[in-house]
Amino acid sequence: MNTHFNDTEREALYRVIAARRDMRHFLPGRTVEPAVLRRLLQAAHQGPSVGLMQPWHFIRIADAALRRDIAGLVEAERHATAQALGERGTDFLRLKVEGVRECAELLVAVLAPDDGTVFGRRTLPQEMALCSLACAIENLWLASRAENLGMGWVSLFDPEALAGLLRLPQGARPMALLCLGPVDHFYDEPMLQAEGWRKVRPLEEFIHTDGWPQS
Amino acid sequence: MNTHFNDTEREALYRVIAARRDMRHFLPGRTVEPAVLRRLLQAAHQGPSVGLMQPWHFIRIADAALRRDIAGLVEAERHATAQALGERGTDFLRLKVEGVRECAELLVAVLAPDDGTVFGRRTLPQEMALCSLACAIENLWLASRAENLGMGWVSLFDPEALAGLLRLPQGARPMALLCLGPVDHFYDEPMLQAEGWRKVRPLEEFIHTDGWPQS
Repeated sequence: MNTHFNDTEREALYRVIAARRDMRHFLPGRTVEPAVLRRLLQAAHQGPSVGLMQPWHFIRIADAALRRDIAGLVEAERHATAQALGERGTDFLRLKVEGVRECAELLVAVLAPDDGTVFGRRTLPQEMALCSLACAIENLWLASRAENLGMGWVSLFDPEALAGLLRLPQGARPMALLCLGPVDHFYDEPMLQAEGWRKVRPLEEFIHTDGWPQS
Repeated sequence: MNTHFNDTEREALYRVIAARRDMRHFLPGRTVEPAVLRRLLQAAHQGPSVGLMQPWHFIRIADAALRRDIAGLVEAERHATAQALGERGTDFLRLKVEGVRECAELLVAVLAPDDGTVFGRRTLPQEMALCSLACAIENLWLASRAENLGMGWVSLFDPEALAGLLRLPQGARPMALLCLGPVDHFYDEPMLQAEGWRKVRPLEEFIHTDGWPQS
């Protein structure tokens, strides 16, 4: 693994990172080739994990009725979110926030039941397992983009209800609905910014030296 | 951003993902060029975030005394972990688990205080903020590897004590010490596997269809 990366390869990675988007618009009626899906899952599985615990599971939704049930959960949460947002609820309902019904493939990313790993997570057990899962998903996301496929991370669901639909064991927690598939085009900027929902803030606000900025 | 990625670019990404390692051995006395560090932080900052909340902060440790204090926290937690591991504690203490003192740059990744974002996190508020931070770190990790620099995510610390050293405000939580810099060589496989601590399990154990496997 002592690969040396050159400027061209490095530039390719930076371009993938810059072009990755949280996609909600997919071309309906499409598929993802099994070999491509396999590469994406392999990329996820090469993610880092604290203490090498690999606390991730990916459930592919093949059954159309199950996908409909999941879409129903998302729709219910969309309305619950609108209610919780108060004044902005109406604006929120106008946004397209998920592509669960149209995307070519729907995967559910699940945090595994705690396996008791102590290494690297004595003080932050739940957090470090979750971070490992998220890193795996980011790998899958970047790989999708490099395969010219869109991916969207949908977190609009009641985790208990989704766990029930998937018959998850005690302690396993669904963390993401991953919508995956061909898209007509990728957004030029984060969709929430393009739609005027919220602005991306500049990097400068997020880097500090030797401690939190003191007022 | 309607970049189309070709086979060569895709292959470069997959090679970076495969070659990324959690590094604990660094060449001491080295530096990271400011322009390179900037690219790495920019890659992190291009990570996805739920509701576009960007819940990350990166604190660069420039002060040598502060770095020593942080190294002291890590050393204390290393011993606490050994104690918690019981029988395997002695084996654990033989492993090199962090490179806080030797790495060229030390960054602390901090979860921002909750900004009250509801979008996409009504049901999983803490989890989705944390996943956003982790995705940003994975971007930084892959970018480091493509820059031929090692990175290690150290989570051996008492978060309250580290928050105190960095004078973090209420609600901000340190989640990672990121050790960064030139290395002599990258591990061929995850170091914990090479050292016989734990084995990587195959992808097949982690992919399922339409629900959790029923026994």
